[in-house]
Amino acid sequence: MKTVAERLGYPADSKLLIVHADDLAVAHSVDAASFDALDKNAVTSASIMVPCPWLAEVAAYAKAHPEADLGLHLTLTSEWNTYRWGPVASSDKVSSLLNPAGMFWSDTGPVAAKAKPEEAEREIRAQVEHAIAMGIHPTHLDSHMGSAFATPELFAAYIKVAHEYHLPFLAVRVTDERSKLLSLLSEKDIVLDSLVIAGPGVPAEHWKDFYLNAIRNLKPGLTEIIVHLGHDDAELQAVTVDHPDYGSAWRQRDYDFVTSPEFKKAIEENHIILVRWKDLGKLVNQP
Amino acid sequence: MKTVAERLGYPADSKLLIVHADDLAVAHSVDAASFDALDKNAVTSASIMVPCPWLAEVAAYAKAHPEADLGLHLTLTSEWNTYRWGPVASSDKVSSLLNPAGMFWSDTGPVAAKAKPEEAEREIRAQVEHAIAMGIHPTHLDSHMGSAFATPELFAAYIKVAHEYHLPFLAVRVTDERSKLLSLLSEKDIVLDSLVIAGPGVPAEHWKDFYLNAIRNLKPGLTEIIVHLGHDDAELQAVTVDHPDYGSAWRQRDYDFVTSPEFKKAIEENHIILVRWKDLGKLVNQP
Repeated sequence: MKTVAERLGYPADSKLLIVHADDLAVAHSVDAASFDALDKNAVTSASIMVPCPWLAEVAAYAKAHPEADLGLHLTLTSEWNTYRWGPVASSDKVSSLLNPAGMFWSDTGPVAAKAKPEEAEREIRAQVEHAIAMGIHPTHLDSHMGSAFATPELFAAYIKVAHEYHLPFLAVRVTDERSKLLSLLSEKDIVLDSLVIAGPGVPAEHWKDFYLNAIRNLKPGLTEIIVHLGHDDAELQAVTVDHPDYGSAWRQRDYDFVTSPEFKKAIEENHIILVRWKDLGKLVNQP
Repeated sequence: MKTVAERLGYPADSKLLIVHADDLAVAHSVDAASFDALDKNAVTSASIMVPCPWLAEVAAYAKAHPEADLGLHLTLTSEWNTYRWGPVASSDKVSSLLNPAGMFWSDTGPVAAKAKPEEAEREIRAQVEHAIAMGIHPTHLDSHMGSAFATPELFAAYIKVAHEYHLPFLAVRVTDERSKLLSLLSEKDIVLDSLVIAGPGVPAEHWKDFYLNAIRNLKPGLTEIIVHLGHDDAELQAVTVDHPDYGSAWRQRDYDFVTSPEFKKAIEENHIILVRWKDLGKLVNQP
């Protein structure tokens, strides 16, 4: 069977990389930093949180930039302390997704434990439909905080909707017990070979090194680097208050890295081919 | 019949003034400026937009400041271009309040034309219940963009809910055709004698003069000055983009005015008695 690289017309052992900004629409600060990174080609792709307050700002950007590679960051959680959102679907139709205050659960755990799969599917479909109604043409689907990967039932709902809309979606080749989820995929689905994402274990002063090492050590195959962009400003400090992980300083560091000359140079020196979800979508939809 | 001043124990011809900040919870910038003005006693009172993204930030402030005079700014509109919100009630139960994208209408006109009164009442009640569930003890009700005053049916729903929760609410003595709305009030309800609010006709350079003149010309009776506080920062500039009226520079001017020594001095020199909705609530709930 051909590798993704071959299917795209590259040598079989190419190193393909998607540089992906998550969480568009969550806050203006995140949108401003992400639009800037997209405009500079500092990231190849990004995905949008449809239930979030700034969706209309992203929809306006998408209309003005039809070439931008924008997918949907399907959202079933609302993780900040002082800034919350709820579902796109009518709340009485997705009540298993909601905390007692009517907002999404703060974390993936309660989603896995409490979400009825048919309600998760309803909400996921509502997010796709709402994005399309807002004039967005999504190029792919992925999952905020990985809640779509939390149970086989949620993963099945995610795949079902992705197939329905003929969209490629984030799935990663894993070898642990989660690998059984991959049996739900069809033959044509794209599976990423690896994912790079900064975690709380990376010290701030080693931020650049973390990413540069990842790029130097990239294996042949399809990799996605997931970054979380934002400006360390009053709005984002308030959004992420008491939550340094993925907080505003973190997002500023990610922005500073992806827009740095070192990042660009490392990609060139390591003969990395940047690809976009749009390119992968063409493969998925080939007859 | 006794005046409000007499009922509060002041001489009948006192000049009573509420200095009221609208729109809490709409944006962090608005919250930060409004909390600061409340903390400095630069405003006496404020009201909260329950459906808006930053409600949890205001609820945390309310819990930490139980003395603060915080009401609910009942919200049936979502007026900004790139930043939107929808209902607290389940959307399929209040569909007449929503535009095709599932958000509140942008302006009061469509609310007046399309909102079913029973759905408006349901949403208003849901906002009160949600605020209470979030730990807020509202001292009064008023209406964002005046949509509760747009038709007699909407006004009746507003009064009904206010009476149900024993809350005083904003209503102003008017002599034009809207005065018939006042016939819906009960004898115990408080009616303001006048309202002061800056409009688009006030040039930025005359901002202070507008308010200082209003204070100098205050008549005996109960007046409310409504201000819209915020910082002219990146977030609020994005919220209010292409909408200079009540925009971020406007809100910065209001913040600068209410926290100015001239405002404090004008209140003292004109023998104005500052009152709060809490004080009025005691009158409403007297046996």
